[in-house]
Amino acid sequence: MKTCYVVGHKNPDTDSVASAIAYAELKKKEGYDAIPVVAGEVNKGTKLVLEKFGVAAPKTMDFTKTPEACVILVDHNEEGQRADGIIKEHVLEVIDHHRFADFSSADPIFIRVQPVGATSTIIARMYQVRKHIPERGVAGLMLSAILTDTLMFKSPTTTEMDKEMADWLNEIVNIDMFAHAKEIFKAKSDISDMSINAVINKDYKEFEFTAGVKAAVAVFETVDATGPLERKQEFLAELANIKADKGYDYLLFSIVDIINQVSYFLPTSDREVRLLEHVFGGNPDNGIVVLPDVVSRKKQIIPPLEEHFAGHDH
Amino acid sequence: MKTCYVVGHKNPDTDSVASAIAYAELKKKEGYDAIPVVAGEVNKGTKLVLEKFGVAAPKTMDFTKTPEACVILVDHNEEGQRADGIIKEHVLEVIDHHRFADFSSADPIFIRVQPVGATSTIIARMYQVRKHIPERGVAGLMLSAILTDTLMFKSPTTTEMDKEMADWLNEIVNIDMFAHAKEIFKAKSDISDMSINAVINKDYKEFEFTAGVKAAVAVFETVDATGPLERKQEFLAELANIKADKGYDYLLFSIVDIINQVSYFLPTSDREVRLLEHVFGGNPDNGIVVLPDVVSRKKQIIPPLEEHFAGHDH
Repeated sequence: MKTCYVVGHKNPDTDSVASAIAYAELKKKEGYDAIPVVAGEVNKGTKLVLEKFGVAAPKTMDFTKTPEACVILVDHNEEGQRADGIIKEHVLEVIDHHRFADFSSADPIFIRVQPVGATSTIIARMYQVRKHIPERGVAGLMLSAILTDTLMFKSPTTTEMDKEMADWLNEIVNIDMFAHAKEIFKAKSDISDMSINAVINKDYKEFEFTAGVKAAVAVFETVDATGPLERKQEFLAELANIKADKGYDYLLFSIVDIINQVSYFLPTSDREVRLLEHVFGGNPDNGIVVLPDVVSRKKQIIPPLEEHFAGHDH
Repeated sequence: MKTCYVVGHKNPDTDSVASAIAYAELKKKEGYDAIPVVAGEVNKGTKLVLEKFGVAAPKTMDFTKTPEACVILVDHNEEGQRADGIIKEHVLEVIDHHRFADFSSADPIFIRVQPVGATSTIIARMYQVRKHIPERGVAGLMLSAILTDTLMFKSPTTTEMDKEMADWLNEIVNIDMFAHAKEIFKAKSDISDMSINAVINKDYKEFEFTAGVKAAVAVFETVDATGPLERKQEFLAELANIKADKGYDYLLFSIVDIINQVSYFLPTSDREVRLLEHVFGGNPDNGIVVLPDVVSRKKQIIPPLEEHFAGHDH
């Protein structure tokens, strides 16, 4: 195998970064040449994790400049989430925990997708099965990714395997998991020095639910929604800008309070209000559509939208 | 998990049938309710294997009559190869060794694709990793599938893992692998009581290489091509019929001599002749395009056609 770059989705979260680093390490343990990279700036939560466990941040890769690069995709598969410049024919492997769509290969390749809470759970399990023990730093990254992607096991995406792998990793890492997770969320929630645009783009994914319908769904997870909600007008203005700029039909943005398990959607058009009402039964109150118990984009937001646009709910 | 049907591709080969049976057994060992079925009549090679190992043939399932059925796909993923009536939103898992295309899921599901010689290799490995020992009959089926899908390890799709799993299975089965494989191929090659149409349909797959281009690629594997080639005129007439009936742009049919490792293509139009010449460099001699060393549809026939229609070879 020639050198391959292991990369997560655009707007990398902790799981994308941890998966890239941990999987590249696993490939190296098996004699392959793999380099973890990121497709954008890492967030504050991830920075805290990298510093805490003494692991260097992966370099940001511009794939538009290296069209021949061999790539291993972790934590994503859909076109809209892939870094610009990645050519799907050069993808060697895919390891993910999201729905599968818009991906095809010319040759048979290695694909492993499991409906678990984090890609790091799958990779930790691969270490286990292949009888490799991750270094403490790498184990700490995977543990942090599992804790954040499952919202400390509160997200409905959480499975027994996530808990099992977190426990296994914590035998190596040996920390107070929940205190550690809260620290990461606190760092992620700090928007004091961020532009409104950066907050919206922090965990931002494009979708084409059906031919011709351009959409994006962005979520901002926080341990305290009060601060961000006070800046509602700034968010609405910026969302309208982005939508006009990108020509989206829908731009759904939600501030997710992961402690109280509530989504606050900020629609900028009647069309979005109607969509949220029709699909999730939510009504705007003072411009905000509050959806209790909706915390997972992957499991609770995307599937009903998919259903809706596929016409199955008519 | 509710009851799920485990099913291989249309025109089932030994790997599709063995994978369905072996994976349903594995799911049952893990406490799930799974039923192996087939999407069409099993071939003579598979019948021989089922009889030899005392395993009942799976029932043929008509999914158009059970639209709510939960399905696990083995040995295929593309739409054109799925049994009619399967609804992709009801697919719970995919285990395959082919290129990935035309498949998407609304929710995250379990997908495992590995570039190995047979789906049975992947399933045998799952037994190993999950510490289950297959019954002798099930092991015999998987071993037969690996031997036939890899053409007794001669196909370029063969990997070390195929050989490793075959050896592991043969610790349970304990037979002369190659004598057994030749017996299966001989049974598969017997076309004395078959219609020409049945021979063409034995291992027949539809492809849409690019929007608007309807194609099918059918291969007939034999240990002796002489007999079938003597019936060339009958094949050409029937191929032309099928093509007109289905409205294909291309219907590529090849008689593959797996002992001498040669493909004999029988084009029925100038357009097909030009395609074979352009993509594979083959020229017709007395109406037959002979391609030495081309034996694997998956690895040697489909990828260059894909490349061609994607415009990458211009």
